[in-house]
Amino acid sequence: MARVTAPAPRYDVVGIGNALVDVIAHVDDDFLTRHELVKGAMTLVETDRALELHRALPTAIEMSGGSAANTVCGVASLGGSAAYVGKVSADDLGGVFDHDLRAVGVRFARAAQHADVPTGRCIIAVTDDAERTMNTYLGASSLLAPDDIDAEVVAAGAVLYMEGYLFDRDDAKAAFRRAASIAHDAGRLVSLTLSDSFCVDRHRDDFVGLVADEVDLLFGNADEICSLYEVDDLDTAVAAVQADCAMAAITVGARGALVATADGVVDVPATPVPKVVDTTGAGDLFAAGFLFGLTHGHDPVGCARLGAIAAGEIISHVGPRPLVELRTLI
Amino acid sequence: MARVTAPAPRYDVVGIGNALVDVIAHVDDDFLTRHELVKGAMTLVETDRALELHRALPTAIEMSGGSAANTVCGVASLGGSAAYVGKVSADDLGGVFDHDLRAVGVRFARAAQHADVPTGRCIIAVTDDAERTMNTYLGASSLLAPDDIDAEVVAAGAVLYMEGYLFDRDDAKAAFRRAASIAHDAGRLVSLTLSDSFCVDRHRDDFVGLVADEVDLLFGNADEICSLYEVDDLDTAVAAVQADCAMAAITVGARGALVATADGVVDVPATPVPKVVDTTGAGDLFAAGFLFGLTHGHDPVGCARLGAIAAGEIISHVGPRPLVELRTLI
Repeated sequence: MARVTAPAPRYDVVGIGNALVDVIAHVDDDFLTRHELVKGAMTLVETDRALELHRALPTAIEMSGGSAANTVCGVASLGGSAAYVGKVSADDLGGVFDHDLRAVGVRFARAAQHADVPTGRCIIAVTDDAERTMNTYLGASSLLAPDDIDAEVVAAGAVLYMEGYLFDRDDAKAAFRRAASIAHDAGRLVSLTLSDSFCVDRHRDDFVGLVADEVDLLFGNADEICSLYEVDDLDTAVAAVQADCAMAAITVGARGALVATADGVVDVPATPVPKVVDTTGAGDLFAAGFLFGLTHGHDPVGCARLGAIAAGEIISHVGPRPLVELRTLI
Repeated sequence: MARVTAPAPRYDVVGIGNALVDVIAHVDDDFLTRHELVKGAMTLVETDRALELHRALPTAIEMSGGSAANTVCGVASLGGSAAYVGKVSADDLGGVFDHDLRAVGVRFARAAQHADVPTGRCIIAVTDDAERTMNTYLGASSLLAPDDIDAEVVAAGAVLYMEGYLFDRDDAKAAFRRAASIAHDAGRLVSLTLSDSFCVDRHRDDFVGLVADEVDLLFGNADEICSLYEVDDLDTAVAAVQADCAMAAITVGARGALVATADGVVDVPATPVPKVVDTTGAGDLFAAGFLFGLTHGHDPVGCARLGAIAAGEIISHVGPRPLVELRTLI
């Protein structure tokens, strides 16, 4: 946990993740079946498959996305200060992504570009039940390496927030270790979101090591936490995470969230929403509210309540970035 | 008007216009004042000004736009067949534009590309009163020349629909003349939308000549028609257009539209909408409904009613492309 001797942080949160632009379209369930898509999952796709799915998609809108990027924009929208480390290309979508960070006042510590590798994009099919099914072409985003970590920016953030989706290539894993080490050396808090149970499954040993060694605050949903510890029931997983991390914030879908600390486990209900339109970004914005709360003196229950409010806004419209200033909702 | 000897058309409507991607954000009136923007107008901007405005814009969404492109997508969404002639670049936004035409089944007769000239974009600031203020960086879109007109496609459309916004550079003017001539030679109908009163003002003599020589069906709002004939009252303008064109469909804002033919002038009220969110595309979709009606055996009043229904859908949400299949509304 943070040392009391650290200088005052310049940012509440510094996020690191896959820098993506979302391509969002409304589809029926038949579309998912026809294209053999797993509803609710995030699947990594290569160029050909991305092109094939894009061609099949109805009229789409493009909007900046990327899990950790959504989170830091949420922190800024709540009135906090934030920075982001990620990799885009010098193309149109890279410009869109850059714009939307700056538009809410997030400092973009933009990693060096690789010629010929386009900005990553996430094809999101939203069904009538508001579930989102994601197919991600990572492009430039996944090429983040240790040298791309802006040490000055990471050291200046009260909390480092790392996105599990990016924890895939060896270079990115090394980048996470480096960022966590910089943050801890500067007396900062290190947090991680598990992002996806398939993702946890693919890299379980590395995730387990990272969580045990470096993570002060863990985010994830029930599936992801259970997958991490290879257990079937949430209670056992919660006990395991309590042994590893000072704090864990675990979302449990429409029921809300629970927060586990050394002091015990508390439940926080979800914020009721008149109509759930698109669940894209729900977890990202829960993390935004939680991290804003944590860096503004709230207790764990208060943090989770702020998370629920931010998530409630994002699921009431299409797209993973807030459409109102979240600070007006709290 | 169409000769009865023409072969059956393959498309109901063939559109020609500025191929643009819209960058849409919600702003307050103060934003317009601060950046010296004329509310409700379309202003052409150069690269530097476009970048300056884009930098100032809040979180945005990107969505395909372009006036005539919106219209042909509306025709397709109503269940008609359509093609489009326009110029984009081989960049991300060109891909977005191409995708959204194909997604609704519009044939894109894509003009040859110019290296180093990016796809055009329209920065749209939407205010609380649902008015849109547009700043357009034309990019590749404005470089359309006579050789870019796909004669086979134009000859195969029952109605040619040309967008006044594009009628700016000499090459584009020549392209319009060529397209109109191909359409008439094939026994087709030629229509034009005036697009913008500033646009009419800049090129009045050329517009007057084109309307008198080539246009069978003219679209415009009251301001644009009055500007075309340099008169102050709509009645005088309507009399003038009756002398020039077989038919004119003139929108009069929230009041609806009037249709002028040799038989007289009829009023058609607007379709009531619970909440007007964004007026972007209202005129484009009115034209879509009108043209769909015209090519499906409706009388002028029926055509204008279909136009009002299509416009009603588009102003009830953000963005100028239909979010439901318009055929389900008629």
